[in-house]
Amino acid sequence: MIQIEPDSEIPIYTQLTNQIIEDIARGNIKPGDSLPSVRSFAADLGVNMHTVNKSYHELEKKGIIQIVPKSGAVIAKHEKVDLTTYEKLKGVMRPQIAEAIVSGMKDEEIHQLVNTIISELKDDQTNQ
Amino acid sequence: MIQIEPDSEIPIYTQLTNQIIEDIARGNIKPGDSLPSVRSFAADLGVNMHTVNKSYHELEKKGIIQIVPKSGAVIAKHEKVDLTTYEKLKGVMRPQIAEAIVSGMKDEEIHQLVNTIISELKDDQTNQ
Repeated sequence: MIQIEPDSEIPIYTQLTNQIIEDIARGNIKPGDSLPSVRSFAADLGVNMHTVNKSYHELEKKGIIQIVPKSGAVIAKHEKVDLTTYEKLKGVMRPQIAEAIVSGMKDEEIHQLVNTIISELKDDQTNQ
Repeated sequence: MIQIEPDSEIPIYTQLTNQIIEDIARGNIKPGDSLPSVRSFAADLGVNMHTVNKSYHELEKKGIIQIVPKSGAVIAKHEKVDLTTYEKLKGVMRPQIAEAIVSGMKDEEIHQLVNTIISELKDDQTNQ
């Protein structure tokens, strides 16, 4: 499911992080599921183990996975967003919303864009 | 108005780009206005000229400024978002919306967050 574009401006570990997050949002990977081991994931994707490791650490920092001895990288469950994550998301979304405004989007169009993204992410969800 | 955090994880040129975009969204800088020359802006901010130059090129690539001979970096006017920008914004916002969902935010909470950001950006707008 993961598609890495080696020629993208976006670093490979960020592509991997983003795609794992999107797969969880889509419901393809669920809380309690384990991600593959660093070694096997790197082999499957044809990327460096260091890249997968960096991505897992980023996901752990974001609170999206927990590194559990023996089980590996386990998807965490979040019923409610915590304040730190909320503030971080606000910080990263602000420049992009500002860019949308500057590029000529009306408030309503920005909300429609958000709806489009949410719909696309939830398109293939079966039980959420 | 621009505040650079040298110790941030975010590269300085990106901080500069984001803050210029936010200042335009806020209406502090208006279409037709010119940004300072690279040399004087770099001196004011206490950063390398190369950093300001990189930020201006990024803004130009985003269609937010036009580099005009003699006038320098002029803020472009956008009445309506173009499709390329829309698709780019969709691409950069998707991982963040996915992260919001994964972190436990409901659709309605994501829209409220977007509203909060828009309100904060437009807080000190006087004539828009």
